Amino acid sequence: MSNPSLLILPGDGIGPEVMAEVRRIIDWFSDKRDLHFDVSEDLVGGAAYDAHGKPLSDETMAKAQEVDAVLLGAVGGPKYDDLDFSLKPERGLLRLRKEMDLYSNLRPAQCFDALADFSSLKKDIVAGLDIMIVRELTSGVYFGEPRGIFEEGNERVGINTQRYTESEIERVARSAFELAMRRNKKLCSMEKANVMESGILWREVVTRVSQDYPEVELSHMYADNGAMQLVRAPKQFDVILTDNLFGDILSDCAAMLTGSLGMLPSASLGAPMANGRPKAMYEPVHGSAPDIAGEGKANPIACILSFAMALRYSFDQGDEADRLEAAIEKVLADGVRTGDLLADEGVTPVSTTQMGDAILAAL
Amino acid sequence: MSNPSLLILPGDGIGPEVMAEVRRIIDWFSDKRDLHFDVSEDLVGGAAYDAHGKPLSDETMAKAQEVDAVLLGAVGGPKYDDLDFSLKPERGLLRLRKEMDLYSNLRPAQCFDALADFSSLKKDIVAGLDIMIVRELTSGVYFGEPRGIFEEGNERVGINTQRYTESEIERVARSAFELAMRRNKKLCSMEKANVMESGILWREVVTRVSQDYPEVELSHMYADNGAMQLVRAPKQFDVILTDNLFGDILSDCAAMLTGSLGMLPSASLGAPMANGRPKAMYEPVHGSAPDIAGEGKANPIACILSFAMALRYSFDQGDEADRLEAAIEKVLADGVRTGDLLADEGVTPVSTTQMGDAILAAL
Ligand SMILES: CC(C)[C@H](C(=O)O)[C@@H](O)C(=O)O
Ligand SMILES: CC(C)[C@H](C(=O)O)[C@@H](O)C(=O)O
Repeated sequence: MSNPSLLILPGDGIGPEVMAEVRRIIDWFSDKRDLHFDVSEDLVGGAAYDAHGKPLSDETMAKAQEVDAVLLGAVGGPKYDDLDFSLKPERGLLRLRKEMDLYSNLRPAQCFDALADFSSLKKDIVAGLDIMIVRELTSGVYFGEPRGIFEEGNERVGINTQRYTESEIERVARSAFELAMRRNKKLCSMEKANVMESGILWREVVTRVSQDYPEVELSHMYADNGAMQLVRAPKQFDVILTDNLFGDILSDCAAMLTGSLGMLPSASLGAPMANGRPKAMYEPVHGSAPDIAGEGKANPIACILSFAMALRYSFDQGDEADRLEAAIEKVLADGVRTGDLLADEGVTPVSTTQMGDAILAAL
Repeated sequence: MSNPSLLILPGDGIGPEVMAEVRRIIDWFSDKRDLHFDVSEDLVGGAAYDAHGKPLSDETMAKAQEVDAVLLGAVGGPKYDDLDFSLKPERGLLRLRKEMDLYSNLRPAQCFDALADFSSLKKDIVAGLDIMIVRELTSGVYFGEPRGIFEEGNERVGINTQRYTESEIERVARSAFELAMRRNKKLCSMEKANVMESGILWREVVTRVSQDYPEVELSHMYADNGAMQLVRAPKQFDVILTDNLFGDILSDCAAMLTGSLGMLPSASLGAPMANGRPKAMYEPVHGSAPDIAGEGKANPIACILSFAMALRYSFDQGDEADRLEAAIEKVLADGVRTGDLLADEGVTPVSTTQMGDAILAAL
């Protein structure tokens, strides 16, 4: 049997630096745990635009469709700010999500014990926090038509369309209920059904799907209240299910509760392929951080934890994922910190590579 | 010259209780400060539905168009959950906003010194916080067409439309820049121009309007990053300008930073009327809190501070508004607390009316 295949798309900014550490981790699993991957690498975002004049070439798109999992670093940077909308780095990422049909975006917001002091929230509010946000990723206002800027009378109008079919809602709801079954069996669905008809349909379909999961306690919350409750008492949540746009905002809000974006991974999953594995892309929640790119300051943990999610969700290697996550917790407990994790002036930050070294040593 | 006119719409849940305290404050200003208002009262939300079968009668709508300012309590409650979308209490509120064309919604997020400990955020992150969120209130996905739930093939699809014209963006941007000029001259505009064309137009128009306000330092931020930054370091902001839906979520997120929704007022302003005053509605940010309605537990401060905003923005009585706000700060500094403001078990909460008494005494 051939090895599972991984396509690595480091992207822009700090993407290549953090991905270099992931490659060392992948090598470690090959050497020490007899877990081998066929790894290839390609371009996305600004890097792809620089090489090919577009943020994702058709060849790269085709490769992404073939592999068992994609690992993506980050896209974007000020250099590309003035590009036309269709050429911006983000479009490469959105094309991957859409064409691979990665409808279920898993964003854990977890507070590491060693870092609980680092949050802007009080320690007792966030210590032990462990939420999973399931964000719909291939539909809604991100992709709905009509969209664009149009002439109307003697002025222009900007239009986007929020659009959800029952089946789109149903499949992401199922993935959230499945996750809830493996966690604490609580699911809170967030929309604005008091204002938006798409939210009414969302609530109705989620309620219908919940009948297949009688053990899961389902609640509904308006998204504005959801944002408030995340700030007020985040530990009330287990799994949160929401749409593409609300998910974008609420997951960033939740991410910030934990104190550092540099720690948070994500998985974007689609339908099962012929080999039974889901279509999948893994990426850190943080962006390309152009301000520190190339300086060796970036925190590689979010990207490494994204690989841990790949082990768990694509390759059925939950034990190996646990092993990798435990190594990271140990390193944090030992006080190893990249610059983003430093509250005190006194401590010297380690570099991206030194953090990689420490994690390898802990493994 | 006749007295300025006020239409009071207490609404549902705790609305009537908190509004009763506002009426005592209004009487105080009439007795002691020679500030007289012609006050009338009417129904909105579930209360209007119970009386007339719809959440706002045409007669009440017509009255709201005539008066100098509307004061609204809160709408909604579980009793009305199963009503058709078009009959829900919220529709009464949305009709007022839309037909009065109240495009500029001012939501201060202010942390009162006496309550800084009460936030879920660390004290140094929120002490002294003073942000003004300007939310567009009459357009965007709240009102855009097409909207609804439609048949498509053999399933249904929920559709809403995000829609902004240049002139809609321009007028709310102007109101935000005007406010910034009277504050710390910093304005941060939030959208998702990396994903939505309506956000591109938003950014372009805001940038154009900024040329008329060269003293104001303008920045742009993606709304997801905005949510994060609000949690991470809210004091970086002065005025935040955003659209209807992002404003709904971001202002609730910001509100929660301060520790209690029971403290936060809002003003919704439209174009100037013949007498020079803007069309205006004032309401607390909190909801109808059906769980405690009728128990005399509600905090009336948000609603009283909404009246202070009316004094300032509709009636040019900034000094009297200051007087009222100072009385409230004094009461808080004295340790008077309704139940929502209690962190410690030891302290006994005061009732809604006792809080009103304390504020009157401080005046
Ligand atoms: C980069 C951007 C297009 C993207 C999004 O809006 O989805 C990002 O914010 C995210 O959350 O992954
Ligand atoms: C009650 C509801 C319709 C309203 C809104 O969504 O605008 C509320 O959340 C608000 O923020 O004033």
